[in-house]
Amino acid sequence: MTATPAWPPQSASRLYVEAALGEGVAVTVEGNAAHYLISVMRVKPDDIVLLFDGRSGEWAARARDIRKRDLVLDCVVRTKPLERVPDFWLCVAPVKKGRIDLIAEKACELGVARLQPVQTRRAVVDRLNLDRLRAHLVEAAEQCGRTALPDLAAMVKLDALLRDWPEGRHLFFADETGGVPMAQALVAYRGPAALLVGPEGGFDPAERAAIRALPAAVPVSLGPRILRAETAAIAATAAWMTLNGDWAPQGGAE
Amino acid sequence: MTATPAWPPQSASRLYVEAALGEGVAVTVEGNAAHYLISVMRVKPDDIVLLFDGRSGEWAARARDIRKRDLVLDCVVRTKPLERVPDFWLCVAPVKKGRIDLIAEKACELGVARLQPVQTRRAVVDRLNLDRLRAHLVEAAEQCGRTALPDLAAMVKLDALLRDWPEGRHLFFADETGGVPMAQALVAYRGPAALLVGPEGGFDPAERAAIRALPAAVPVSLGPRILRAETAAIAATAAWMTLNGDWAPQGGAE
Repeated sequence: MTATPAWPPQSASRLYVEAALGEGVAVTVEGNAAHYLISVMRVKPDDIVLLFDGRSGEWAARARDIRKRDLVLDCVVRTKPLERVPDFWLCVAPVKKGRIDLIAEKACELGVARLQPVQTRRAVVDRLNLDRLRAHLVEAAEQCGRTALPDLAAMVKLDALLRDWPEGRHLFFADETGGVPMAQALVAYRGPAALLVGPEGGFDPAERAAIRALPAAVPVSLGPRILRAETAAIAATAAWMTLNGDWAPQGGAE
Repeated sequence: MTATPAWPPQSASRLYVEAALGEGVAVTVEGNAAHYLISVMRVKPDDIVLLFDGRSGEWAARARDIRKRDLVLDCVVRTKPLERVPDFWLCVAPVKKGRIDLIAEKACELGVARLQPVQTRRAVVDRLNLDRLRAHLVEAAEQCGRTALPDLAAMVKLDALLRDWPEGRHLFFADETGGVPMAQALVAYRGPAALLVGPEGGFDPAERAAIRALPAAVPVSLGPRILRAETAAIAATAAWMTLNGDWAPQGGAE
């Protein structure tokens, strides 16, 4: 009646590191991450910690030299290859602090490949702390098992985003003035895609006209209720993953 | 070049009240709601405030007798009938405070008909502040334009939920041990439905077996990443609304 224990252990901590990982590589962990492993998770010598660097997949690493403020982790074996998430970008106007953090966290969990902040006229917030957003992406990636972080692009103005829009990528956008039901749009427009969500105050009429003028733009409707910006971002991303992404029956990651 | 101003004005505050509304009914508003209208929104005599009572739709009401701590609103005309949301329940194990509040807020915005808290063995949280949850539902309903609040049911044990499961209602549940891709499950199982999401620690094996034994149960997969409980709840609700609810091309509310 003894079951083989899972390896790596399910309880193993999971940590993103900047260092390039590989078999036999020793990584010294300091700062907050070390505090978390040593004082919160109480990692002991020879315990396994899972590491990923966003480039080489996930590695099981063994702890040693645990001191007060740092420890060393030796990469033993690769436990996962580098992930391929579906080719989906989330383009969002910055919204209030807690809500943009939520968008970053959920975008990472749901499998977004790139998070692209977009500056629009009615945005209540015009500056964005990219370091804080990145910290939320890292934490979500550690938690949800991703082996790469979503790209976090610098904020661009909406005009520039539209002017430089790459050929062959659909741009779904939630248009309060009306659009195609989401399910219908998703079935009609497969392939690389992005979702554009405006700020709390919505796009202004000139912005909406500019978006609609883009050949790649697909105005969509997200039902009869008024969704907050972050709800629209999370819900429409989930819908895309369900029908066109890697939650779909055939998978959409390739 | 003068456009007809929208009526009721788009900037009108929107408020849930307990009182039964009707043409000519005068409602005295006190407490936090009065503070919000008087001091935050700076409502003046004759300004329009939108009211809903969860039973009779939405009403435009005119402000008068604005004092320091209360004001009177006279219902003038009904602006919306009582809504019919799709027949979808969200059954969730309680999770940490901020995250269960988020589930309540998003469930309301996305159009859930009933929020059903469920007690499970691995739940980190075993008590639930229903008043606080209800306050989040009210605030979300005010913001998203709903004219009725979702039902908020008292917490039940998982065993009881399954024992009394109503005939003819599908029960989608996110099964970490594997399930049908969400899109495929949604197409195969139309009609009244519910989603069951476990706590942070998941269902235990006996609970999972009990759920799977229910004929109405449909184990679903929400992609290859590990979703937090609240992410699974929000994402799967959005997927249901997209394909089987009132975001769908034919609508699912009737």
